[in-house]
Amino acid sequence: MKKILLAYRFKPEGLKELEGKYEMVAPKDKSYFSKEEVMELIPDFEVFVPNFSFYTDKEIIEKGKKLELISNYGVGFNNIDVEYATSKGIAVTNIPNSVLEPTAEFAFGLLMAAARRIGYYDRKIRTPEGVSWGVYRDAGLPVFGKTLGIIGMGRIGQAIARRAVASGMQILYHNRHRLDENIEKKYDARYVDLEHLLRESDYVSLNAPYTPETHKMMGETQFNMMKPTAVFINTARGSMVDETALIQALKEEKIWAAALDVFENEPDINPEFFALDNVVLAPHAGSRTVEDRIKMSIEMGRNIIGFYEGKYTISRVN
Amino acid sequence: MKKILLAYRFKPEGLKELEGKYEMVAPKDKSYFSKEEVMELIPDFEVFVPNFSFYTDKEIIEKGKKLELISNYGVGFNNIDVEYATSKGIAVTNIPNSVLEPTAEFAFGLLMAAARRIGYYDRKIRTPEGVSWGVYRDAGLPVFGKTLGIIGMGRIGQAIARRAVASGMQILYHNRHRLDENIEKKYDARYVDLEHLLRESDYVSLNAPYTPETHKMMGETQFNMMKPTAVFINTARGSMVDETALIQALKEEKIWAAALDVFENEPDINPEFFALDNVVLAPHAGSRTVEDRIKMSIEMGRNIIGFYEGKYTISRVN
Repeated sequence: MKKILLAYRFKPEGLKELEGKYEMVAPKDKSYFSKEEVMELIPDFEVFVPNFSFYTDKEIIEKGKKLELISNYGVGFNNIDVEYATSKGIAVTNIPNSVLEPTAEFAFGLLMAAARRIGYYDRKIRTPEGVSWGVYRDAGLPVFGKTLGIIGMGRIGQAIARRAVASGMQILYHNRHRLDENIEKKYDARYVDLEHLLRESDYVSLNAPYTPETHKMMGETQFNMMKPTAVFINTARGSMVDETALIQALKEEKIWAAALDVFENEPDINPEFFALDNVVLAPHAGSRTVEDRIKMSIEMGRNIIGFYEGKYTISRVN
Repeated sequence: MKKILLAYRFKPEGLKELEGKYEMVAPKDKSYFSKEEVMELIPDFEVFVPNFSFYTDKEIIEKGKKLELISNYGVGFNNIDVEYATSKGIAVTNIPNSVLEPTAEFAFGLLMAAARRIGYYDRKIRTPEGVSWGVYRDAGLPVFGKTLGIIGMGRIGQAIARRAVASGMQILYHNRHRLDENIEKKYDARYVDLEHLLRESDYVSLNAPYTPETHKMMGETQFNMMKPTAVFINTARGSMVDETALIQALKEEKIWAAALDVFENEPDINPEFFALDNVVLAPHAGSRTVEDRIKMSIEMGRNIIGFYEGKYTISRVN
């Protein structure tokens, strides 16, 4: 029986298909194992399951002498040294299906909250100074009729586009490769270079994977290209943004607002964000509903079952 | 030249079409006229333009000896004693077109903010206690795959349905009259009675007009019918809800959350709402973007031009 080490105490509802066929070890009296605990346990296991915030580095992989599979609980895999795993012949899988709709939904919710100032209203209305009830004061920006630029038009980007089109938006996108014409037609989406996208869009949503090439791809130069009425949305990874430049752009109103679900040093957030009224902040909750998180466990488990039993198509990243 | 009394100092960009052809009087050194000031000025005017929060009662109409038209700056007209205006032969118009998309957009934004806890995250993350970054804690509810019940399936209701369908939702609706089959098909929407809608929906959006029949239509009985995981959204009018019953339902978690843009005694809000984490609060901002508010002025002005010059189809409510 293959042994699975789970770095997080996932809800049992999502692990049913693995029960009886695999031996599972997970934290019992707390939510997650520390790096040290994983290092001590891992030599005995064929499969390791890190949650998306657990960094599976060279040192850990080195210790996993029996490791055959790292089944990531997340779609992004910048929490795993995939290159090193590959060099050791260890397979790495991720879960693109279950996170798709919840993340697109959250990204579009953040866009609307920033544009229409929903976060701001809900915060300010509860304070003694309150918020304006006037005709123009404390007004938001329209979404309908505006242009959304999507950086990274993969499945999540397209699921955002679907919502945006129904909300009356036009779509521009930038991607490593231009998409199939049929997909473009579906969203009436226009392929443009990054500079064009930044200059022309009223809303810019970052949905590319985090790679060395996309590291801090949004910096001072890029924010300067954006419209002063533009809104920037990041539900991808914090390290794709130069946060100092973003804070400066928000402070100096070079852009109108931002909505951020991810941060460079999360769970630590640069405290300068807290003082800004033109930003909506969320704690990496793009797929955080209990129902979706259980679906993510099921997809993660099926990568293991598929890997060993061939019953499911798996999502390998190496 | 017909004389127009404007109760609010609207931005001139929206009044251009009236310039030169009508004499306009508006507040100069402040945003709005008081009731007393309107009473004093109105005997001289053929047209009165109240903003949506200005109550145009019998007393005011009585004083408007020359009044021919009340051109409301708003879609709801519960701020006007329409019956009395009618008895005096005064036409009343409203502006359903320009508020349509911004209001639907705001309603759907509130739905997403309440479901995915965007308001909560943005508030709590800025406090010393912060918010959880865990896998399940402080989790929201999914929108995708869930059922939205729309009470009042007029144009705003349908514009919400369009967004909801693209977000993966099923639509139930309740309305005074069942809609045309083609409209139902467009949103795959099912007509049900109110009790069915309340019992079966994961999200309930109130979009009916305020009338004596809809006064406090959502009370204890109705909230008790809703699922404990349901979210209630009100962007219509506050007086359609028994707020004491709603506060109780939120406190006792009979329903999961609410998102409210309108209140019984706005701009005063029952302070009990402020202590609740499962509610998103907004200051009647459904159509509050400067761009949309200017479009509303243009539509309002075209009701006047249409009334006197026949150049535009007007939206009369009496």
